[in-house]
Amino acid sequence: MRRYVLVSYDVSDPKRWRRVYKVMRGYGQHVQYSVFLCQLTDTEEARLRETLYDLIHKETDQVLFARLGSVESDALDRNLTVIGREYDHLDLKKLIF
Amino acid sequence: MRRYVLVSYDVSDPKRWRRVYKVMRGYGQHVQYSVFLCQLTDTEEARLRETLYDLIHKETDQVLFARLGSVESDALDRNLTVIGREYDHLDLKKLIF
Repeated sequence: MRRYVLVSYDVSDPKRWRRVYKVMRGYGQHVQYSVFLCQLTDTEEARLRETLYDLIHKETDQVLFARLGSVESDALDRNLTVIGREYDHLDLKKLIF
Repeated sequence: MRRYVLVSYDVSDPKRWRRVYKVMRGYGQHVQYSVFLCQLTDTEEARLRETLYDLIHKETDQVLFARLGSVESDALDRNLTVIGREYDHLDLKKLIF
């Protein structure tokens, strides 16, 4: 099953922040400064975790993974809403390698 | 029903950012620079939206509301995970006014 996962990161060091950002660009859509919306299988999520775990400082940095539900459902419409600037809800399947 | 809601905001102007931050502190736990974890009823979420809507710049700022499931369930353990710095999982019910 492929899920919507909102990934939000707090990385204080600019170099590390950039490295995390570059990795995230290959996994999903950049919706806020340090937030990406992804569509991930369990395997892809596990691989992303591992990659980010090796990049971040374990005590000071933090990456949150918020699972929002299956991409085959209306989970995104139900569970992710926005006020202010819209995010263009791309069909992310094209981004998945 | 009371739900866990992850609220993440992108507010470019420091004064507006501070105003949003002050409002959010009354609604939940500060887990990342611009991210709060809340436990909200529909009414509280609607009131929070209204309050924030009046504070933000509609075109440039953005607030995301990610619903993670009922507080009466194991939704948080299933749907919100972290790598790196832990967030201390307070019992937020005490914070609710």
